[in-house]
Amino acid sequence: MDKIRFFSPHEGISLSDLSGRCGAEIANPEFSGRIVTSIAPLSRAGSRDITFASSRKALPELKNSQAGAVFVTAKLAADVPAGVAALISADPQSAFALAGAALMPSAMRPLRFTSAVGVSEAAVVDPSAIIEDGAIVEAGAVVGARAEIGAGTVIASGAAIGEGTRIGRNCDIGHGVTVQHALIGNQVIIHPSASIGQDGFGYAPGPRGLVKIPQIGRVIIQDHVEIGASTTIDRGALDDTVIGEGTKIDNQVQIAHNVRIGRHCVIVSQTGIAGSTTLGDGVMIGGACAINGHITIGDGAQIAAMSGVASHVPANVRWAGIPARPMNGFLRDVADANARAFGKTGRARTEKGGEEQ
Amino acid sequence: MDKIRFFSPHEGISLSDLSGRCGAEIANPEFSGRIVTSIAPLSRAGSRDITFASSRKALPELKNSQAGAVFVTAKLAADVPAGVAALISADPQSAFALAGAALMPSAMRPLRFTSAVGVSEAAVVDPSAIIEDGAIVEAGAVVGARAEIGAGTVIASGAAIGEGTRIGRNCDIGHGVTVQHALIGNQVIIHPSASIGQDGFGYAPGPRGLVKIPQIGRVIIQDHVEIGASTTIDRGALDDTVIGEGTKIDNQVQIAHNVRIGRHCVIVSQTGIAGSTTLGDGVMIGGACAINGHITIGDGAQIAAMSGVASHVPANVRWAGIPARPMNGFLRDVADANARAFGKTGRARTEKGGEEQ
Amino acid sequence: MDKIRFFSPHEGISLSDLSGRCGAEIANPEFSGRIVTSIAPLSRAGSRDITFASSRKALPELKNSQAGAVFVTAKLAADVPAGVAALISADPQSAFALAGAALMPSAMRPLRFTSAVGVSEAAVVDPSAIIEDGAIVEAGAVVGARAEIGAGTVIASGAAIGEGTRIGRNCDIGHGVTVQHALIGNQVIIHPSASIGQDGFGYAPGPRGLVKIPQIGRVIIQDHVEIGASTTIDRGALDDTVIGEGTKIDNQVQIAHNVRIGRHCVIVSQTGIAGSTTLGDGVMIGGACAINGHITIGDGAQIAAMSGVASHVPANVRWAGIPARPMNGFLRDVADANARAFGKTGRARTEKGGEEQ
Repeated sequence: MDKIRFFSPHEGISLSDLSGRCGAEIANPEFSGRIVTSIAPLSRAGSRDITFASSRKALPELKNSQAGAVFVTAKLAADVPAGVAALISADPQSAFALAGAALMPSAMRPLRFTSAVGVSEAAVVDPSAIIEDGAIVEAGAVVGARAEIGAGTVIASGAAIGEGTRIGRNCDIGHGVTVQHALIGNQVIIHPSASIGQDGFGYAPGPRGLVKIPQIGRVIIQDHVEIGASTTIDRGALDDTVIGEGTKIDNQVQIAHNVRIGRHCVIVSQTGIAGSTTLGDGVMIGGACAINGHITIGDGAQIAAMSGVASHVPANVRWAGIPARPMNGFLRDVADANARAFGKTGRARTEKGGEEQ
Repeated sequence: MDKIRFFSPHEGISLSDLSGRCGAEIANPEFSGRIVTSIAPLSRAGSRDITFASSRKALPELKNSQAGAVFVTAKLAADVPAGVAALISADPQSAFALAGAALMPSAMRPLRFTSAVGVSEAAVVDPSAIIEDGAIVEAGAVVGARAEIGAGTVIASGAAIGEGTRIGRNCDIGHGVTVQHALIGNQVIIHPSASIGQDGFGYAPGPRGLVKIPQIGRVIIQDHVEIGASTTIDRGALDDTVIGEGTKIDNQVQIAHNVRIGRHCVIVSQTGIAGSTTLGDGVMIGGACAINGHITIGDGAQIAAMSGVASHVPANVRWAGIPARPMNGFLRDVADANARAFGKTGRARTEKGGEEQ
Repeated sequence: MDKIRFFSPHEGISLSDLSGRCGAEIANPEFSGRIVTSIAPLSRAGSRDITFASSRKALPELKNSQAGAVFVTAKLAADVPAGVAALISADPQSAFALAGAALMPSAMRPLRFTSAVGVSEAAVVDPSAIIEDGAIVEAGAVVGARAEIGAGTVIASGAAIGEGTRIGRNCDIGHGVTVQHALIGNQVIIHPSASIGQDGFGYAPGPRGLVKIPQIGRVIIQDHVEIGASTTIDRGALDDTVIGEGTKIDNQVQIAHNVRIGRHCVIVSQTGIAGSTTLGDGVMIGGACAINGHITIGDGAQIAAMSGVASHVPANVRWAGIPARPMNGFLRDVADANARAFGKTGRARTEKGGEEQ
């Protein structure tokens, strides 16, 4: 099975070209003309691959590397073996990401399921929808009345775009995705079976049960946002739900009505954000967090995985735990719990994956 | 972008008419003939909008409101500015929900993706299925053998209804939804990509691995239930999984086999309920809770978000935490954790979203 | 409503036949020729049903049973009422599962939504795809270029199989499922709206925002794996994501890039496993757990529901809690929390579902 690869190697890019694109500098100019065709992890990169090493933890693998080239920090350059080209970068991982984008361009956008060009005859497109030239609507996709789809955008088979929804250019709307009551920018990627723009969860308790509160807001998704598989984003109740530019949202995230997320945030899988909460710019939230409603998380704040955030979070802090609190206090409590469970030396042993019962 | 609205204003309803429908009383009879056309939040309701204020927290906004009308409690009526009609209600939010239903009727049911009337020729419907007149089956929907679909029900594009499944009247089965082995009442809403009636997770460990236990029960969903996007409800193993009348279930909730949920319960997103657990009537469960299997949660019990409920819960209590326990004990433990992390005054400062590290 | 059953009784299997298939011994040979037609729980099994009792907890129901036959351990055999056939098995539940498979064969594989034989004319299949004779591709399913589908496999309506993906024999790919960049073995079941093989969540932070790292690995799913509804499994970044033979994954589980799961593992719903973590064979993980990335969980380890696993876990341990730690230490901490909340006698009362506030 191991021979089957879904991404073919590139025909080749020279290191001088690649280092230019990635903002790196070739330590050994004699390798400028060397050609690489693919990316690989440090552990198994071969002579046609480019790889990276960011920290001293990678030293043992780095010293034995047979890669064609490796992005490294200046500090690690001396440890690159002879014969391997060292490309110096302040941020080897970012440089590697850019090299990957250059060498594997087909991996930068989701797979297309059919070879459709333009609007498939087997798609269901309302006559009043506006599909720009160069957009692709695959077989089995549905586009409602007055919806607008920009050039270069792919609406995958099995996706549905609701009446009046606008989707910008060069977007990918995945298989099984539902988008409604939404305005979506350019270069947005939505992975399979995500649901965007359905009713928020709003009811008023009444004498004969729960009364549904109409949800008449929208979902606004700005440019360069990526949204994971089976993620759900409810439309606003009276206001809008907003996802800021460049924000990346993982699989199975839940975003409730009226949430406003800033720019360049990262939200890892299975986190839920309750209604009317606001995140600043550059916020990072680990997986499986529960974020309370009607709170604010400041710019640049980082929340560790599996935290329960009950109250406002200041900017630029690192919080963790249930309830979420500054990292130091959280780590002390974790150490206490581990000490009770493992004995005094327990924590260190656990971190090494020790053998205790 | 802000001009694009998905829900158009109503042509207008008089306050006398609206107050009657919502069980409210007009404080200033001179406004009885005033017309409102839409709903809006207190902060930006204009002269054609109706809004509401429930508590003294809303006072600053209320005093500056320029709304056409506002539902308020009798206590708040004196603070309604001159020129704004005050509609007195014991429960302003419920009255507002009912007004919203009257003014925004199209928001009370999910969006339709096509303009299909009746059964689309591009739907895949088994000849033995029974589709009542007035039901809509959109293009790309699938209805299996001997399934039954009631009048007024919409089966959205991309939904699949399994063999023998019965769906009542005026239901909405969303895009990408799968329903099988299920009996569904009237006026049930199922949001996109929910999965109802697949196998429960049952295996017996055996010498050659796990042996699948056949799951031959059903899912019973009673009238007026609403089910969120990507929620999964497994069918019973030998008995049934049951969702009681009027219960509202949010996105990404997991309900395992044989769970029985009472009437008018609220289950917020990302909560999971393990197999064979029973919830009484009027139970409210916050988001991201994990509810153990084979336990009972009594009528009217309320469980806070991110709780882990390991054992039976009595009726009419408020529990929280991991493990879930009465709210007072939980709050003491939270205060202790916060005091350790923030110092003695930490908790109060946190609640204000303070600036501490 | 109670008359509607989705699984019809079998025409009948004799107890001598059934006990042979299930590795059980008939305690009363005079019942060897008795015919049973269905399975039922002990509480309501009738004269044509077979059921099981595994422990003394079932004694009251066992003594009153009117079942045709009951699988029991040797210890419980004396408590089987006269007239009920006792089938002795070291593992009554496994024997019951096998009996269920024999009596309810249609329940062993997911429901088909149409009566399609072969490739439906309403499916969208690339001409270069290879569909073995005996495979079924339902209306509305999509199969991409060079994909391969084995004999006996059903691709349900609304499923999409990406370019080059290989699916083995006798698999079931459910409605709304997306599979891409994947190699899938035989007898694999994937429930509705699961997403397999989309991009992992990998970004490098850069000066102009987050840079997407191309994800060029695959998902490898071995034989006899079952995957729940709305579960998401990302493809590897540079290496592969692997699910080992016989492993069972529940609904709404998230498995990140490069995770490697061993054979015959059980992962209950809403658990998330972060990137590059490795599970050994026979690992059991309860629901709603968060498993850190880049750690190892040893063979046979068991993790209780709602645990947060931050560090390596040795083989064959039982851990629980946030942070996860050996069960004894966890239970002491839970007892302490309950004692604070309920008073000293609180815990016992809670376990009985007591009436305290």
